[in-house]
Amino acid sequence: MRAIIAFVVLVGLLLPTVALPSSPAPEDPPVTSDLIVQRIIESVLADEHPVERLQELCDVIGPRLCGSENMDRGIAWAMAQLKADGMDVVRAEPVMVPHWVRGEERAEVIAPWHHDLPLLGLGGSIGTPEEGIEAEVMVVSDFDELEARADEAAGRIVLFNPPWEGYGKTVQYRVKGADAAAKHGAVACLIRSVTQSTYGPPHTGVMRYTDEEGVPRIPAAAIRVEDAARMERQHRRGLPVRVRLEMGAQRLPDVEQANVVADLIGREKPEEIVLVSGHFDSWDVGDGAHDDGASCVLAMEVARQLKKLDLRPRRTVRVVLWIDEEMTQTGAKAYMLAHADEVDRHVAAMESDSGCFAPAGWSVRGDSTTVALVAEMAVPLAVLGADDVSEGWAGVDVRPLNEAGVPGIGHRTQNDEYFLYHHSPADTYDKVDPDHVKANAAAMTALIWMLAEAEDPLPR
Amino acid sequence: MRAIIAFVVLVGLLLPTVALPSSPAPEDPPVTSDLIVQRIIESVLADEHPVERLQELCDVIGPRLCGSENMDRGIAWAMAQLKADGMDVVRAEPVMVPHWVRGEERAEVIAPWHHDLPLLGLGGSIGTPEEGIEAEVMVVSDFDELEARADEAAGRIVLFNPPWEGYGKTVQYRVKGADAAAKHGAVACLIRSVTQSTYGPPHTGVMRYTDEEGVPRIPAAAIRVEDAARMERQHRRGLPVRVRLEMGAQRLPDVEQANVVADLIGREKPEEIVLVSGHFDSWDVGDGAHDDGASCVLAMEVARQLKKLDLRPRRTVRVVLWIDEEMTQTGAKAYMLAHADEVDRHVAAMESDSGCFAPAGWSVRGDSTTVALVAEMAVPLAVLGADDVSEGWAGVDVRPLNEAGVPGIGHRTQNDEYFLYHHSPADTYDKVDPDHVKANAAAMTALIWMLAEAEDPLPR
Repeated sequence: MRAIIAFVVLVGLLLPTVALPSSPAPEDPPVTSDLIVQRIIESVLADEHPVERLQELCDVIGPRLCGSENMDRGIAWAMAQLKADGMDVVRAEPVMVPHWVRGEERAEVIAPWHHDLPLLGLGGSIGTPEEGIEAEVMVVSDFDELEARADEAAGRIVLFNPPWEGYGKTVQYRVKGADAAAKHGAVACLIRSVTQSTYGPPHTGVMRYTDEEGVPRIPAAAIRVEDAARMERQHRRGLPVRVRLEMGAQRLPDVEQANVVADLIGREKPEEIVLVSGHFDSWDVGDGAHDDGASCVLAMEVARQLKKLDLRPRRTVRVVLWIDEEMTQTGAKAYMLAHADEVDRHVAAMESDSGCFAPAGWSVRGDSTTVALVAEMAVPLAVLGADDVSEGWAGVDVRPLNEAGVPGIGHRTQNDEYFLYHHSPADTYDKVDPDHVKANAAAMTALIWMLAEAEDPLPR
Repeated sequence: MRAIIAFVVLVGLLLPTVALPSSPAPEDPPVTSDLIVQRIIESVLADEHPVERLQELCDVIGPRLCGSENMDRGIAWAMAQLKADGMDVVRAEPVMVPHWVRGEERAEVIAPWHHDLPLLGLGGSIGTPEEGIEAEVMVVSDFDELEARADEAAGRIVLFNPPWEGYGKTVQYRVKGADAAAKHGAVACLIRSVTQSTYGPPHTGVMRYTDEEGVPRIPAAAIRVEDAARMERQHRRGLPVRVRLEMGAQRLPDVEQANVVADLIGREKPEEIVLVSGHFDSWDVGDGAHDDGASCVLAMEVARQLKKLDLRPRRTVRVVLWIDEEMTQTGAKAYMLAHADEVDRHVAAMESDSGCFAPAGWSVRGDSTTVALVAEMAVPLAVLGADDVSEGWAGVDVRPLNEAGVPGIGHRTQNDEYFLYHHSPADTYDKVDPDHVKANAAAMTALIWMLAEAEDPLPR
């Protein structure tokens, strides 16, 4: 890792004096003209490169839990790829990240009849004692039911089996379930996986422990929707459900990893930055294809295509592959510290993190003028289905930039299926349609080009 | 188990002399009249009983691998249920069945990067040595590729990753893959799960070893479609894929279990039998809801509804819950031996074993006259979508009866989704739509009524 961090492309150090290629700006027709956008779209759609790159990331590197060896390999791979793409600057910017390891884990239902219980520990959970935890399961639908039946929780494994009400709402049981159960003496916490699908593997994701005194830390894991539903029916029927868990999870000391940052330096205003990004870390199961490997490949592809098409824009296009989105967002925080002096020169910050399905448009974090300007730029992307623009959330990693006034642009896809795969062993390369990779690459490249080339920056 | 086998309802022993309830046959209108069928359909559709019974079977008894303790509990449960339903005869007819146990199993991919490998041993497979088997994986698409590259197989784990070409064709790799690989020196065999879904858990099912001399028995297991696809891509890319397997599977001595048989004795021709059946054994994962718990509940429901509606038909309606369909069909064979003297008095044998989805009609094994007669009977079932009748396969368990001349009737459902769940931990109660349970119960009850009441039996 240190070797990677130490590597700074010389041209990066020489940035103010570097000789820029003389790709002239197309002054006429204007930058948003259908001609250039059409050229970009046609070129990107015809190029299999990002599909092959995603396959290589998924199959050769694999999943990229922050702190893991695979993450180190991933960073080295991305640096080499971006250099091969001919980026002007390629840097691994050091970040101290949490190092949580899953360890060995297994579970079984002991009663009413014995069966293996597929489970997936939640990110950040402690493990069980070596001998495991065996206890009767108390099933509740929600926090209210837990409070109403709080006197039953002591010594039990509490299972939250809430109905799916969308990720934003249902995820609260994953994040806060263990604390809520521990307050009433539960010895472990299980949750129904946070997904709408009643089929498929368990889904992990981050959980958090309170620092509040007197709330013990208990292990937390997700189980399949089928198993949660069965346990709830058995429990409501009055059958004692007994489960045994063994989880080897632990939090090791933080390690140094990195955000990967690469610049295609602007032709006229190199100091102004249009950022395009995805998060490079993933969970440790599957291969993180949709979340968020494909987005990283898309961000890399934007700069590669501009380079390939000799369309060096007015402003600098910066590719950022964030680390530690899934756990504690140390990557986003470290970027703000490292780039404090140029935050106000970020013209826009795009993040892609909603899966790589068919393009759906853009979610813009900015004032109504910004939203309207992006909507205007997106008109020629209608051919890709990427012309829908609304005000909204841009992304977890660009949030600090957004809060400092940088307009945020969330890349959206038609991701109805996203939570079937999200954070699970089913988030694998085969779930990504190559045509969607190319369509999203085309949409992102075209919009970033327009943002980086526009005469006036977006209003802050 | 012996206590169950020993239990023979007295009325069964006294069968020839038992006083039958005097429910008169509806001579006019004729038996196929819409009025009676309509009455049956309305009654069954309004009755939640089979839905609750299926839930009880799935949640309280669980899966029913033949030879297992759960299977014993299931047989006792079914006997009690059928007695409570007021059947005239309820018998557990002894069958010696294979007793294969899965034991503990786990697998991991060692290279190119480490990850857990969800797997499910195939039914009948031997286990690995206690220390496991670790070897490089050779991935082939089909038997032809294995033969073409046979010299690479020695010492390898052969993975068959055939495309899905329908269950009937693709299942050959599950059944015969281990032998094919062992002939060339492979140390274990993996298969892509036999399913069209690229999402979901591994799917088990029976495999067989040849008795041919010189072909060693090697362990065989199914893996997820995603993992098979990834390994194939890695293998074709030239990356060595290394896997470690531990499987505790073993074949124990055969045990005595039973077919569960219950009669609703015919009003006029008690010696003539219309058989309605499902197989009661399942695999040991999930709870065997679609395969074939629901069908057993449906068969039980047919007789229960006729009894409840006081529609005792001319002929005897016999409910059979077969044992050991999944492994070696000892249940079907034992039935033929035990009932040799009355095989020629079986008028029809219905089996339901295609999942409990929306009704689709009937697949009739018999001559064209038989097919035409069933098609005529099925006309009033159009309201349930159960009027489509074609010549075809009736079922594995009724096959010996069919081969002895008994017309077979396969109950069909719209089972496009069946192989998503089939033989996997996802075959669970929540996958069955209660409305489909009721609709199939109505269709089966109505058709069995017509078959048992018809003046003339179906031609043999």
